[in-house]
Amino acid sequence: MPSVLVLNGPNLNLLGTRQPELYGRATLADVEATCRAAAAERGLDVDFLQSNHEGVLVDAVHDARGRFDGLVLNPGGLGHTSVVLLDALTAVGLPLVEVHVTNIHRREQFRRHSYVSLAADGVVAGCGIQGYAFAVHRLATLFEETP
Amino acid sequence: MPSVLVLNGPNLNLLGTRQPELYGRATLADVEATCRAAAAERGLDVDFLQSNHEGVLVDAVHDARGRFDGLVLNPGGLGHTSVVLLDALTAVGLPLVEVHVTNIHRREQFRRHSYVSLAADGVVAGCGIQGYAFAVHRLATLFEETP
Amino acid sequence: MPSVLVLNGPNLNLLGTRQPELYGRATLADVEATCRAAAAERGLDVDFLQSNHEGVLVDAVHDARGRFDGLVLNPGGLGHTSVVLLDALTAVGLPLVEVHVTNIHRREQFRRHSYVSLAADGVVAGCGIQGYAFAVHRLATLFEETP
Amino acid sequence: MPSVLVLNGPNLNLLGTRQPELYGRATLADVEATCRAAAAERGLDVDFLQSNHEGVLVDAVHDARGRFDGLVLNPGGLGHTSVVLLDALTAVGLPLVEVHVTNIHRREQFRRHSYVSLAADGVVAGCGIQGYAFAVHRLATLFEETP
Amino acid sequence: MPSVLVLNGPNLNLLGTRQPELYGRATLADVEATCRAAAAERGLDVDFLQSNHEGVLVDAVHDARGRFDGLVLNPGGLGHTSVVLLDALTAVGLPLVEVHVTNIHRREQFRRHSYVSLAADGVVAGCGIQGYAFAVHRLATLFEETP
Amino acid sequence: MPSVLVLNGPNLNLLGTRQPELYGRATLADVEATCRAAAAERGLDVDFLQSNHEGVLVDAVHDARGRFDGLVLNPGGLGHTSVVLLDALTAVGLPLVEVHVTNIHRREQFRRHSYVSLAADGVVAGCGIQGYAFAVHRLATLFEETP
Amino acid sequence: MPSVLVLNGPNLNLLGTRQPELYGRATLADVEATCRAAAAERGLDVDFLQSNHEGVLVDAVHDARGRFDGLVLNPGGLGHTSVVLLDALTAVGLPLVEVHVTNIHRREQFRRHSYVSLAADGVVAGCGIQGYAFAVHRLATLFEETP
Amino acid sequence: MPSVLVLNGPNLNLLGTRQPELYGRATLADVEATCRAAAAERGLDVDFLQSNHEGVLVDAVHDARGRFDGLVLNPGGLGHTSVVLLDALTAVGLPLVEVHVTNIHRREQFRRHSYVSLAADGVVAGCGIQGYAFAVHRLATLFEETP
Amino acid sequence: MPSVLVLNGPNLNLLGTRQPELYGRATLADVEATCRAAAAERGLDVDFLQSNHEGVLVDAVHDARGRFDGLVLNPGGLGHTSVVLLDALTAVGLPLVEVHVTNIHRREQFRRHSYVSLAADGVVAGCGIQGYAFAVHRLATLFEETP
Amino acid sequence: MPSVLVLNGPNLNLLGTRQPELYGRATLADVEATCRAAAAERGLDVDFLQSNHEGVLVDAVHDARGRFDGLVLNPGGLGHTSVVLLDALTAVGLPLVEVHVTNIHRREQFRRHSYVSLAADGVVAGCGIQGYAFAVHRLATLFEETP
Amino acid sequence: MPSVLVLNGPNLNLLGTRQPELYGRATLADVEATCRAAAAERGLDVDFLQSNHEGVLVDAVHDARGRFDGLVLNPGGLGHTSVVLLDALTAVGLPLVEVHVTNIHRREQFRRHSYVSLAADGVVAGCGIQGYAFAVHRLATLFEETP
Amino acid sequence: MPSVLVLNGPNLNLLGTRQPELYGRATLADVEATCRAAAAERGLDVDFLQSNHEGVLVDAVHDARGRFDGLVLNPGGLGHTSVVLLDALTAVGLPLVEVHVTNIHRREQFRRHSYVSLAADGVVAGCGIQGYAFAVHRLATLFEETP
Repeated sequence: MPSVLVLNGPNLNLLGTRQPELYGRATLADVEATCRAAAAERGLDVDFLQSNHEGVLVDAVHDARGRFDGLVLNPGGLGHTSVVLLDALTAVGLPLVEVHVTNIHRREQFRRHSYVSLAADGVVAGCGIQGYAFAVHRLATLFEETP
Repeated sequence: MPSVLVLNGPNLNLLGTRQPELYGRATLADVEATCRAAAAERGLDVDFLQSNHEGVLVDAVHDARGRFDGLVLNPGGLGHTSVVLLDALTAVGLPLVEVHVTNIHRREQFRRHSYVSLAADGVVAGCGIQGYAFAVHRLATLFEETP
Repeated sequence: MPSVLVLNGPNLNLLGTRQPELYGRATLADVEATCRAAAAERGLDVDFLQSNHEGVLVDAVHDARGRFDGLVLNPGGLGHTSVVLLDALTAVGLPLVEVHVTNIHRREQFRRHSYVSLAADGVVAGCGIQGYAFAVHRLATLFEETP
Repeated sequence: MPSVLVLNGPNLNLLGTRQPELYGRATLADVEATCRAAAAERGLDVDFLQSNHEGVLVDAVHDARGRFDGLVLNPGGLGHTSVVLLDALTAVGLPLVEVHVTNIHRREQFRRHSYVSLAADGVVAGCGIQGYAFAVHRLATLFEETP
Repeated sequence: MPSVLVLNGPNLNLLGTRQPELYGRATLADVEATCRAAAAERGLDVDFLQSNHEGVLVDAVHDARGRFDGLVLNPGGLGHTSVVLLDALTAVGLPLVEVHVTNIHRREQFRRHSYVSLAADGVVAGCGIQGYAFAVHRLATLFEETP
Repeated sequence: MPSVLVLNGPNLNLLGTRQPELYGRATLADVEATCRAAAAERGLDVDFLQSNHEGVLVDAVHDARGRFDGLVLNPGGLGHTSVVLLDALTAVGLPLVEVHVTNIHRREQFRRHSYVSLAADGVVAGCGIQGYAFAVHRLATLFEETP
Repeated sequence: MPSVLVLNGPNLNLLGTRQPELYGRATLADVEATCRAAAAERGLDVDFLQSNHEGVLVDAVHDARGRFDGLVLNPGGLGHTSVVLLDALTAVGLPLVEVHVTNIHRREQFRRHSYVSLAADGVVAGCGIQGYAFAVHRLATLFEETP
Repeated sequence: MPSVLVLNGPNLNLLGTRQPELYGRATLADVEATCRAAAAERGLDVDFLQSNHEGVLVDAVHDARGRFDGLVLNPGGLGHTSVVLLDALTAVGLPLVEVHVTNIHRREQFRRHSYVSLAADGVVAGCGIQGYAFAVHRLATLFEETP
Repeated sequence: MPSVLVLNGPNLNLLGTRQPELYGRATLADVEATCRAAAAERGLDVDFLQSNHEGVLVDAVHDARGRFDGLVLNPGGLGHTSVVLLDALTAVGLPLVEVHVTNIHRREQFRRHSYVSLAADGVVAGCGIQGYAFAVHRLATLFEETP
Repeated sequence: MPSVLVLNGPNLNLLGTRQPELYGRATLADVEATCRAAAAERGLDVDFLQSNHEGVLVDAVHDARGRFDGLVLNPGGLGHTSVVLLDALTAVGLPLVEVHVTNIHRREQFRRHSYVSLAADGVVAGCGIQGYAFAVHRLATLFEETP
Repeated sequence: MPSVLVLNGPNLNLLGTRQPELYGRATLADVEATCRAAAAERGLDVDFLQSNHEGVLVDAVHDARGRFDGLVLNPGGLGHTSVVLLDALTAVGLPLVEVHVTNIHRREQFRRHSYVSLAADGVVAGCGIQGYAFAVHRLATLFEETP
Repeated sequence: MPSVLVLNGPNLNLLGTRQPELYGRATLADVEATCRAAAAERGLDVDFLQSNHEGVLVDAVHDARGRFDGLVLNPGGLGHTSVVLLDALTAVGLPLVEVHVTNIHRREQFRRHSYVSLAADGVVAGCGIQGYAFAVHRLATLFEETP
């Protein structure tokens, strides 16, 4: 059974209470429930990690090689600044869908660029926590299409 | 029954034969089938228009007001250049999900900006034609969440 | 009797209902009435065209040569992006006043530049639909000043 | 009877003799006559000040609060450089129409931006001294539209 | 017999009367005669289309696939702004020579970049309408060199 | 009794020995003594954390919600690069004064911008460690002004 | 007894009535009272000048040499544009603390740079009129630290 | 006898005491003596004005028309920022040599551009106060060469 | 009989062996044969120079005045960097066609600008060594059109 | 015996398996062996640390003061983004040679700048893991040259 | 007797015939005569070199060390592009005055920057060939001022 | 026996006397001795050329093809400006290590980019003349690794 690691970067532990008019009222637990539902629907194992530490996320990406078949990553603010995360993702080479809860293209200029996007297969932004479900579905489809 | 208009911009009539190593082998007919399936699953009406003419797309956006409840739009190259299309979308104010078949953030610099994103609720890129299904699902969820 | 062609570009057919807090509640019919009143006051013939199609506007500019003595043009979003429209206006060389209903200099960065301004004699922005009346008056004065 | 202060910035005392091929042959006295005629037509009081000193203009803007109902301002070269003037105009918050005798958008790059435009309701450029008449008329209309 | 489609974009219908000191006095009919002569010399069929509508040009590029062996394109102002046209040309993948009547590199900054050049095999600028003859000759040579 | 958390970012543990001609000879212990004195003067509780780890600082910002009434933050080099820290500060929404020991505006170009400033109420730079005292006083005043 | 000159630039005479939601309701008289209190506390003489005229401020800076021991300067909008003021401050070489009532780093892009900062020892922004007190205290400390 | 007005802008009254390692120890009186000597050598009348007020300098430029045959101008910091001064100089159209005591091209980036240079016939920088003598000589030669 | 000098700049002596997948397999001798054939067809004398030394090329351009009637120039990498070559070409003022073997507009950003283009009548790029033939033909036509 | 600390930043633990066509097949163990050999040849002690955590690297740099005589640092992606690391290196002031396995100047634009280079004595890029040996040799030479 | 080398860069051999409306009708021989006269007046030896070859100029700058006491250099187009020339001038460290016949600040953007200015003591532009005389005088004065 | 050509560009003949505080006191003869020692250690032939003429260096690069197995190049200032040198290096395709005596990344902005780096395998900067030894060693290793 293919497996997916869902990584959430800095500040995403605050989902639900952080600027709810912008990020919505769903919590990280809701994100996990959403992912679990989508994974179950598609016959995937799913695991989760959230950290506010870039190094912990990089370590997790490294460890995912050989243990997971794909990654869902919401890098939070690290997406806009972290070449290190980009390099980790490129190094392990797993299928990757990047998720942003908000539509980052309508916000400040510095949020419109994501280093992570340079390593991602797909990018979903502005679909709330439903974007995580789309990401899981996309990975499932990619797994099915790969012989 | 809520209804969705799926608009495809310039060159998307060539899907399937246009640089298939980049855009894949699915055709515009496959896009429509994908959307119909997702719409049926969510109880939505769905209609389609593809045009290589900016003006035709703008007219269609205008006409959608009062006739449709949401828009899925793949603007093709117009996304990167058309303030006119942005203005039309802002003027009608319908829920909007923007779709790009490829991950535009990994391509040439001029493809990384989309005026359409400034009017979109959500943006899906690099998920192939599955991105249209995600867009339809997102609109369905938005319709459900709106009292 | 000198004659003026009043051209309105994309999305201006929506005047009155499009973001009225920004563009006001006057309609395109009100624009035409305003122009007719000013033209009558100054002894000018006046005709109108609105289109959401760049090509239609370019054709109209071409056709204006020899048939009209001056142009009033609200290019809408095309002003910010269309070298083609600039070239058409330069080619026919008619007296031209550019009108924007809103003060484009207070809006997004990409609205602060207009290619059309490079071919215009005068530019009026942020005076609502009264700007069209000013444009007609300016052309009338230019006609009177030209021997 | 509503009243308008017409402010002219640096170098506008030279109108008529300064690069007449660009600025025309009308003088500052002609500007005042034009404004008086328009004000009379619309039932407005009108007063005038020209200065080559930024500080004098700022003082005048401050003093206008409570003494005038609107401002017409041709900032001359200060428009392109003076945050101070912008701040003064924003602080007093009077209705404001900015006038430039020439079409600044066809001239050097550094003339295409005006800080004053950020505080202006309307902007008229390239209509010669007739632009002042348009500005007076616009203020008159704004006064009439305000209950 | 190999065939070539000669496409002329917006405003090129005005050749001969449009700023003749810049574009010369030769007309679009002269362009066609020049192309016919070069095509006859090289044993090529040649056909023509001019339009001021981006969408019409895109449709023509699409239709050229399978019907023509190469394209000559003077995109007019669209070259500087149209990602859509670039995408169409890339999609059909026909040999392409881009022609500009004037030397665009000596004109305004915004004319120095052409999206079309990113899809073109060769580019000829500033050789007047003789540039079209060079383009036809270049395509003929490319056809001969291709086994 | 209102409480303040004083956060010091990377390299500030070296205060006193790090480039003393630039940062002075006062140590982090001196910073804490300075803050304690100011807090005592204003009747505030005060606590301290210094870390060279972005993630530790982010965690501390998160934990401050509900436990402290305001933040003093010297982000060190993170101010210039960390969207993550900005997002954490925005998310918890506590009153915030940013402190830089040196006048960052007179140093290298990359030190003149601080993401943290986008979330700060006040910014104090170039006042040495006295800046921390000012920050504590400012928070005390803000607490007093808030009913 | 060391003495300080507190200089306020253009538009600061309007403090209290100018955009109070941004600048607060304290007046220039309140600023002076705040400075007097801080000066008294630290045993300093203090004097004041406000002007909307750059030249008057420059003259005052020149005259301060030999008559005052330090400067507090809120340059208003001049900070963002005046090399002349920077040069005056550099020329006299007095200790200088720059004050901005608002946090200029959260406002328009053009407010984020201050030429005055290049000559300042310290910079205080966004602390309201309390920032002036901090500036006086900082100068007092600098005077005490200088043998 | 042709006459020359030597204008010195802001902060040049401090010559001799202002950063002497950069500007040298010669005073404004020395500048005048240098100019008088050069003028006497070439048979010219010479007059002087220094001001820290942009408006006073603009007024002086205006008044120079018809009263002087040429201008020597050291604009100080205004050269880098004042479109107003450029416009005044262009308006009066007198022969003009711009002088900077230091080599502004080796200093901060913002000193490398001078609006005044756009109106100047010649520019002399980094020749100390001898540059004024060169300027007077240049004007004398220009006067002699003009029939 | 009019005469043409064909100048080839740095590295063009390596044509045929230098990155043949990019520059093709034709040699400099082939270039000369191509030019000779075109010149013979049009009744022109033709001469050649290739050098890797900017100074030699500049000297040759200078010497061409009075000895040749037109220039064909492939500046190689100098086109992108040499103001000196531009100045030489402008100084002699001979008709000039610039040739690039490859389509420089599809290559690195720094190859997209050519100083030489600012002095050229026509520019041919991406037509292989056939571009030289076009250049000779263009000069021949220019000679014929000049009375 | 002088000692050297060899620091490797994020993702360098993956050397040998990470994009070997770019980074080669040598592992971090090979790097250490290479450094040990060079250190032995030059009579140096050598120690090692690799971390994916910026904070751990900063702590290590701080701890190196007084314990090591020089640093070899491959910052990985942190070089391009971390002002914090630059500040740590500047603060401790140890001799430093920066190493990059690949030639970062031939890769993406964002890899061409390294903050670490601003604190480094020497920089070696694109020499594979041999670059570490060069770095150790360089430090040895610097130690020998320092009295 | 102190000696001066007057160096003229590329294209200055054409002075007098090269765009005389811009560069004037004086020749390089006139330049030399002008310099000889000024040198004689000030008791200086003077020698001359003109070359279109950067390398020859660099060699001459090197050779000047120990043989001349100062340099006058008109770098022609090399000033805008040659770091090599800047390095040569910095390396020999002789007093240097840079001369441009025209006012480069009023010409194309790329002429407004000169690398040579970074090594020059003084810069004279737009004073025609009289600028060379000023340069010789400036060097003479510098020699006299140096003990 | 493999052979290496060591090329030194403009101004490197001055090594030892040119700004020794920056470039050190070692001479070009020392560079050659250093290279000879390293080459002897690794069993390589080595030859040398220094020139201040770009063209001579380009000719030498061309001639190296077939005669040498690798290049060491210190391009001096040409590295920052010469596309011609880049093209020569790319054309011959020999293994190449670029050397800079100083750490160019800590100097002026214009020294931070090197066109030569785009063709280099490795780059060594800021290691003094020892960098040449490293370059020779790197080439030796590359020769050994190539079958």
